[in-house]
Amino acid sequence: MPGHRLRGLDVLFDPRAVAVVGASDDPNKVGGRPIDYLRRYGYRGSIYPINPRRSTVQGIPAYPSLDAVTEDVDLAIVATPASTVLETVEACARKGVKVCVVLSSGFGEMGAEGKQAEARIAALAERRSMRVLGPNCQGAANLSKGSVASFSSSFADHHVADGAIAIVSQSGAVAGMLSEIQHAHPTGIRYWAATGNEADVGVPELIGWTVGDPDVRVVEAYCEQLTDVATLADAAADALAYGKAILMVKAGSTPEGRRAAGSHTGALAQEEPVVDAFLRQHGIVRAEGLSELSELARVFTIGNVPPGDRVAILSNSGGLGVMMADRCRGEGLRLATLTEETQECLRRLLPPFAATGNPVDLTTQLLGDSRLFSQVLPALVDDPGVDIVLLGLGMMGRGYDVATITDDIVRVHQTSDLLVAVSWIGGQEGAAEDLARRGVPTFFDDAACVRAVARYAEHCARVRSRRATGTPARPPETAVAAPPIPDDAVPGPGGFLSEHASKRLMRTWGLPTVRGGLVRTPDEAVAAAGDLGYPVVVKLSSPAVAHKTELGMVKVDLRDDDEVRRTAADLLARAREGGVTPVDGLLVEEMVTGGLAVSLGATWDDTFGPIVLVGSGGIHVEATGDFRLLFPPFDAAAVHRALESLAIFPLLRDLRGVGPLDAAALAELVLSVGRLFAATDGRLPELDLNPVFVLPDGAVIADALIRATGPD
Amino acid sequence: MPGHRLRGLDVLFDPRAVAVVGASDDPNKVGGRPIDYLRRYGYRGSIYPINPRRSTVQGIPAYPSLDAVTEDVDLAIVATPASTVLETVEACARKGVKVCVVLSSGFGEMGAEGKQAEARIAALAERRSMRVLGPNCQGAANLSKGSVASFSSSFADHHVADGAIAIVSQSGAVAGMLSEIQHAHPTGIRYWAATGNEADVGVPELIGWTVGDPDVRVVEAYCEQLTDVATLADAAADALAYGKAILMVKAGSTPEGRRAAGSHTGALAQEEPVVDAFLRQHGIVRAEGLSELSELARVFTIGNVPPGDRVAILSNSGGLGVMMADRCRGEGLRLATLTEETQECLRRLLPPFAATGNPVDLTTQLLGDSRLFSQVLPALVDDPGVDIVLLGLGMMGRGYDVATITDDIVRVHQTSDLLVAVSWIGGQEGAAEDLARRGVPTFFDDAACVRAVARYAEHCARVRSRRATGTPARPPETAVAAPPIPDDAVPGPGGFLSEHASKRLMRTWGLPTVRGGLVRTPDEAVAAAGDLGYPVVVKLSSPAVAHKTELGMVKVDLRDDDEVRRTAADLLARAREGGVTPVDGLLVEEMVTGGLAVSLGATWDDTFGPIVLVGSGGIHVEATGDFRLLFPPFDAAAVHRALESLAIFPLLRDLRGVGPLDAAALAELVLSVGRLFAATDGRLPELDLNPVFVLPDGAVIADALIRATGPD
Repeated sequence: MPGHRLRGLDVLFDPRAVAVVGASDDPNKVGGRPIDYLRRYGYRGSIYPINPRRSTVQGIPAYPSLDAVTEDVDLAIVATPASTVLETVEACARKGVKVCVVLSSGFGEMGAEGKQAEARIAALAERRSMRVLGPNCQGAANLSKGSVASFSSSFADHHVADGAIAIVSQSGAVAGMLSEIQHAHPTGIRYWAATGNEADVGVPELIGWTVGDPDVRVVEAYCEQLTDVATLADAAADALAYGKAILMVKAGSTPEGRRAAGSHTGALAQEEPVVDAFLRQHGIVRAEGLSELSELARVFTIGNVPPGDRVAILSNSGGLGVMMADRCRGEGLRLATLTEETQECLRRLLPPFAATGNPVDLTTQLLGDSRLFSQVLPALVDDPGVDIVLLGLGMMGRGYDVATITDDIVRVHQTSDLLVAVSWIGGQEGAAEDLARRGVPTFFDDAACVRAVARYAEHCARVRSRRATGTPARPPETAVAAPPIPDDAVPGPGGFLSEHASKRLMRTWGLPTVRGGLVRTPDEAVAAAGDLGYPVVVKLSSPAVAHKTELGMVKVDLRDDDEVRRTAADLLARAREGGVTPVDGLLVEEMVTGGLAVSLGATWDDTFGPIVLVGSGGIHVEATGDFRLLFPPFDAAAVHRALESLAIFPLLRDLRGVGPLDAAALAELVLSVGRLFAATDGRLPELDLNPVFVLPDGAVIADALIRATGPD
Repeated sequence: MPGHRLRGLDVLFDPRAVAVVGASDDPNKVGGRPIDYLRRYGYRGSIYPINPRRSTVQGIPAYPSLDAVTEDVDLAIVATPASTVLETVEACARKGVKVCVVLSSGFGEMGAEGKQAEARIAALAERRSMRVLGPNCQGAANLSKGSVASFSSSFADHHVADGAIAIVSQSGAVAGMLSEIQHAHPTGIRYWAATGNEADVGVPELIGWTVGDPDVRVVEAYCEQLTDVATLADAAADALAYGKAILMVKAGSTPEGRRAAGSHTGALAQEEPVVDAFLRQHGIVRAEGLSELSELARVFTIGNVPPGDRVAILSNSGGLGVMMADRCRGEGLRLATLTEETQECLRRLLPPFAATGNPVDLTTQLLGDSRLFSQVLPALVDDPGVDIVLLGLGMMGRGYDVATITDDIVRVHQTSDLLVAVSWIGGQEGAAEDLARRGVPTFFDDAACVRAVARYAEHCARVRSRRATGTPARPPETAVAAPPIPDDAVPGPGGFLSEHASKRLMRTWGLPTVRGGLVRTPDEAVAAAGDLGYPVVVKLSSPAVAHKTELGMVKVDLRDDDEVRRTAADLLARAREGGVTPVDGLLVEEMVTGGLAVSLGATWDDTFGPIVLVGSGGIHVEATGDFRLLFPPFDAAAVHRALESLAIFPLLRDLRGVGPLDAAALAELVLSVGRLFAATDGRLPELDLNPVFVLPDGAVIADALIRATGPD
């Protein structure tokens, strides 16, 4: 894929000549609709219907075959039966077509045979340097050129206007629904693409291409399976660099949804937390469903980038103000502290019982005095501590001068750098629709309004911080030499190295482990403990015993020679009696206290490659789900975002009885593990450091378990 | 309050005669609107406008004073300036009025003086056995009687139809918004009440009264402060017993929202987790905002109570089916496993590439064959494993026979016991509105649809389980004797008992604590350890040291006489040197292993009384928020719901290396602590059992810290 990344997509979206193979005279048929749409939407290139049984199709001269067309054709829409598609695509290649849009179904969605047919099409395209969208897809459109190479009924039901949104979806029906939803809002659609079975062109490439159009502000994406994640990561980095956003519904991320997606487009298993973490790391904003996607787009398509996340709330109902303040907290927005001047000004303007803190409550006073609004709103906008103004309006029936109020809102929205959004609940909804038409993000749902604004504020913070620190869009793939993996580290039957071998490997990688070493006899153990100083920990080290604690093979807090000698003898005897083999010996190590146990792991995934996990230590991490995943390469900012979102983060900042811990040392360790593990290029399938103790000064690996090969 | 619980509310909602004090001839003024509304909504009782300056008001004979009315008046609406309200209420009492609705503002919301005026009104009402709604309220209405004692403009903007919903709100504007939102939906409103400053009648009483009306199916409530929680709990128990629901937005539960509510109605601090847990325990369904409240009502007002939570999804877009399946998982609903017969039937009906598992995808086949829908839908409804059918429809433009499809849906909705809900995304929205009008819960948002259905399924499960087990609506306040609190348990300067005294108290309450006892000397410690068997734990016991671990005053895993002797001497010496006094001595206790550490606590709250906490053990509970709160009296079902929702619950079911733990013993302990702590009636402010070890057999308190008095 990387070889031809984004190649041909310029032709997909701006063809000079389009042939429709399997063209129908009926504008309602799959093979007829694209011709109807191309003409209706004002496409200015040539259209060549291919139909051996007709001389004209929908009034246009038809050709018996593609070969019969004497002029160049760069895009071919294929709407012939599945069994003829491969020969049609071959004919396209002969004709010099650059992109085929295969609408025909009857491929991978039917089973193994269909998948093979798909693979043959993909191989042919690859060989002939041609790109293929589909098969089993609803096509693609560029509304700025009128090139609608699609049979989606969404182009028939309404006129789709050109605009700042790109819709890219694996499902044609979902792309159509997104287009329908958007019809109720003023922002138009520049690109529309539905990829179907993705034999060649997939959603990530289309996102990458459309986000590069200067007029596109938001890409709305729908995926059931993340593929080609490197291209997706690149597209996301571009979006952040341009200050744009990719909004995505990733479906099929639960076992239930995957089972469903399995029958739908054959998507493979992708675990919810992995998908979520990947999107989060790359700044792709995830929506739960299509409505939320559209709500987000309503805010993300505005031009203003507010300088921060401090919110002033202005309402004509105290209750609505309180609810919006609650939601701001719930969604991670901060309420602005109004300056004394602003509050003084509000006190002058508002009745004595009105709230002049934040939220500001205009009360029913607004009923008698519509100018109140045009006086209060500028006071908030001019407050240097305010970045976002949320308006909670409702119940403005008889007696309210709604036209003046909406004019005031539109003026502020158009003239200030702040983000202004409106939640309009009950009454005068025509006015709210007027606001929306005039470009103000307007909601009929207080919770949805705050949620969309919060996601946008977070996105702006990432865009700003990238600009401020000059962080490159893609974290540098620092040229890390593949880290050493000593040959003498022999895995046991489960594929694991012994703890001693695992730790030795971590040390050769330059990572901090607890002090200690391997001994063979009780006497050596006593000597080693004496060197370390008491108390110590003694453990059996064997590649055959991956989970020592459960077997009682770890003894902590040993306090004198006697205890060490007895324990060492006991562990060795039990290993012998239990037939544990091979046994490296015993690890005698310092006992670490006064720190927080965390876990740090890494694994390889078929789709995502290396994945690093950081979370709660001990047995809690698996049970409680208090962990975050990171995808190398990642930078320090990503690590800090991950750590700060852990439930145990407050303990890192202040561990009771200990004080603040060295979170920076943990972050450094996470960065190192990510860099080094990625550089092994898959030679170590899995690495589990648990616990790592984060101390007031430093962080240290207290246990390590490395899987060196798959199980025998 | 309990003395007159619900008294007078029958008159509030069904007065025989209404006087309006401060009546205005202008139907747009506060004192004019109620008269206008009473007549417009067909109120059939007598209306007496009181206005000394007019002989008629809005065409009705007016009276100079209440005393001048010769007939009986049982409800008085007061719309006079704040300064005259007290004397007006006095006149009402003289006249024998049973309920005053005080619309006038200028009371508690203005400050301390206003609060005092409010208190005087409340005292007067109490003395004269009169009820007061308000002041600073928008009044109350009963749409089945046309008695609209309110000035809310929501009664003017649309005609509010009578129906199955009660709206009860502290904020008049919010009540108005809820009424406006509901106007777009077919279900009408029976009761509407806005309580304002709540000098007397509050939201809980109104919920309790309205939920008792057989025609009311749902109460929509808005609160900024929970008051009179005992009445609220009773109302919630009634709702469950009747199979009805209370839906609530509780605002002001974040610091930001509380600050805002502080200026709005003077609501006091109520922490989010406490409020949330209280509502959850009592089966009050919480919504984030007004839109969600209305979405929930759309499902909760239907008559059908599905027998379970197994969902079949039927869509005409595979993508929509996948998204809805994801959301089902996210919201805790189960996907039904279709029987072999159902699948066989679907295979016969649907094209070979359609999904016949669950979700079922009709594909665009529906375009050509509208009867497909009327054949597939009954097959799902008849499957004995299906309780809920979710329909995901969209993009049904040209060519679809939408009328037939909607008729099919309405028929199934009306004739089956299942819950049928529709998410209609894009295209043919007129059809969706038709469905909604005909009573089918219909959404334009897939996520909102599944969320509302999931909340309803949970609610139905509670209603069903209450009926099946015959659990009384209110858990019995088992006559528990106040548990003993020995006099010799002397708290230290922080108000805490020593660990020894705390544990002794727990033992006198009959609760299981670890084996062990108090000793004074190292020799006694060795003897005690010998009796217990090694390993043991030795701790300092002193009321002056509440947090022993941080001071190194706990030593675990001591393995022989020598260690015990040395440790005991060391702890006593350090206590002496550190000036710790008084010192009970040392606790020598068995060391518990092979269990899960949890925490169990209890405290008293001004609003809620006793609150019990159960959660993760150790330092994690505070940091991670993995705890649940319970409010005595509670039953075993509530405890199990709480435990099952903890992040550590999977560890209770299967602790790695140990196996299943005795969750039943933990539940029993939680029940006992709740019962006993509540019976202390506040004499123990706080109790902290952490850790409690849950073992394969039993649960045992390993540490106890009891606050016996407030700090000195």
